[in-house]
Amino acid sequence: MPTNKKKGSQTVVFNKPPGIASWASIVGPKEGKGPWGSYFDWRLNDYLFGEETWEKAESKLLRETIKLAISKGNYQESDMELLIAGDLLNQTIASNFAARELSLPLLGIFGACSTIAEGLIIGSMLIDGDCIQRLVTASSSHHYAAERQFRLPTEQGTQPPPTAQWTATAAGAVVLDGLSAGPKITAVTIGKVVDMGITDAADMGSAMAPAAVDSIKQHLQDMQRPLSYYELVVTGDLGNMGKTIAEKLLSQAGIEPYSNYEDCGVSLFDLEQSGINSGASGCGCSASMLCGPLLKKITDGDIHKLLFVATGALMSPISSWQGESIPGIAHAVAIEY
Amino acid sequence: MPTNKKKGSQTVVFNKPPGIASWASIVGPKEGKGPWGSYFDWRLNDYLFGEETWEKAESKLLRETIKLAISKGNYQESDMELLIAGDLLNQTIASNFAARELSLPLLGIFGACSTIAEGLIIGSMLIDGDCIQRLVTASSSHHYAAERQFRLPTEQGTQPPPTAQWTATAAGAVVLDGLSAGPKITAVTIGKVVDMGITDAADMGSAMAPAAVDSIKQHLQDMQRPLSYYELVVTGDLGNMGKTIAEKLLSQAGIEPYSNYEDCGVSLFDLEQSGINSGASGCGCSASMLCGPLLKKITDGDIHKLLFVATGALMSPISSWQGESIPGIAHAVAIEY
Repeated sequence: MPTNKKKGSQTVVFNKPPGIASWASIVGPKEGKGPWGSYFDWRLNDYLFGEETWEKAESKLLRETIKLAISKGNYQESDMELLIAGDLLNQTIASNFAARELSLPLLGIFGACSTIAEGLIIGSMLIDGDCIQRLVTASSSHHYAAERQFRLPTEQGTQPPPTAQWTATAAGAVVLDGLSAGPKITAVTIGKVVDMGITDAADMGSAMAPAAVDSIKQHLQDMQRPLSYYELVVTGDLGNMGKTIAEKLLSQAGIEPYSNYEDCGVSLFDLEQSGINSGASGCGCSASMLCGPLLKKITDGDIHKLLFVATGALMSPISSWQGESIPGIAHAVAIEY
Repeated sequence: MPTNKKKGSQTVVFNKPPGIASWASIVGPKEGKGPWGSYFDWRLNDYLFGEETWEKAESKLLRETIKLAISKGNYQESDMELLIAGDLLNQTIASNFAARELSLPLLGIFGACSTIAEGLIIGSMLIDGDCIQRLVTASSSHHYAAERQFRLPTEQGTQPPPTAQWTATAAGAVVLDGLSAGPKITAVTIGKVVDMGITDAADMGSAMAPAAVDSIKQHLQDMQRPLSYYELVVTGDLGNMGKTIAEKLLSQAGIEPYSNYEDCGVSLFDLEQSGINSGASGCGCSASMLCGPLLKKITDGDIHKLLFVATGALMSPISSWQGESIPGIAHAVAIEY
């Protein structure tokens, strides 16, 4: 029987929901001191992770997280048929160099901070479709590598505005296995690019919030279910500013008031931690929150139905310099256990 | 019956091979004057395509190529369930902004110059697996946008060495449809990252050749067939230098002498055209060659079995500046009609 996806729908519902067999997260020093620090597998003491540059450190962070996810599931690297990975660095070099060391077939992806959800979506479709039986998907970000690439030289010490978010130093990796009895990915909604004209690259939460709401609305419509079907809905990294906007937009869209809505960008840090401003961001933010506290709560039985909606801001410094607004995207993944 | 992929194999063989329903290519002025100029749908007269910047021109190039592929197949944009796209620009902005205008669900990918093959691989797996019925995949590159991003300011007029390749200004787009009677994608081989230690970013052909040969060898092994099964084998954009190395490596690997091997980087231009050096490169190089002359020859009955092996160099300027060698990747797509 074909997998159920109706014309006009953006959602694929799985007949044979792939299982999340194992997962891992490694985070940086600041993330380790946040409220969920003890939920991550490793907490680094320094930002270089024994490497010479932040970019090499990020690639090692991603690679070690992938290896840890594989070993935590009692797999060998050779058990993985495929790696689906992406990151924020130009030409996704953290992923490319991690894949070089791991010697796994690679499908490189780019969805900015929505990358881990994109990887889960592609991966679960490939397993449901019997093309691949077992794979690992991962994404990462590194605060200092991102800061100097997207913003200003870190030595300059520029004061960010209150809407700015702190790019997380973090990675998350998930092993998907068609035969696993772990938490199931039951449906996925592929997001469209939504751009409401926000041009301030120091306010990405506002730029991404409409995309998050668009994908949530689409998911509920495609699945013919209320938001309350889910015990928890988590967006990627909207931060305080973006989360407030998303709540207003959900309310305007007639979606019922809903108390169990959280955002990884709000959750990852204590907002009192220095430099945080509106919250966290980066590919590693939602990836590490999923592979740290969220999957722990699911396997502990605290959450049975999670809608994970990672969000991405799809601009580059070049597009911003050329006067373009910031396109947002959000991909939704329903996880049930 | 599950699609056939054995453990240790990198190749997925399709039970219900997706059809290439329609396709389009748009190229720049220099590509239009090359030996295959008349095979492309549109040949631009200028590099800006009516836009203010090269980056915006590339995004328009990609968008218009996608629209043309859709309309050539007598489809509406709303008939497409998904866009899978990528390009060379930082954070793949050509694709992101094209997707914004088209309002299609987006899976963004990055495989450097192998991107179109990666899109065909993901797309055909999703269709074979009954997750998606119809989608469009596309990629692009723009000479001047790439030149200033990857190399030096264009105004500087630096003389490139003879191993250098000219990034093509070109885009290709393919509509895949599970119900199409067009050329079939019968099998795909997902490449591993291969890095033989080449560090010269002006010699990407040499860096990518081992990856191309690795994926060809793997494909033949997985399919248990000789190279001569294919009437034509085409690599992505190795150029003259890389193609010569690939031929030697194939011979060393004991693969029979084979006369029908071509390379899109060698073919796209007349090598007498000014500035070409070792040939063409860029995501648009193999994409436009596939969506121009190659698919024309297939539908004309001149080629019945094609192995299309797009290649990518997965470095960035940052990785090169930090002393890293150049990781290569190649993805193989078997097209039969």
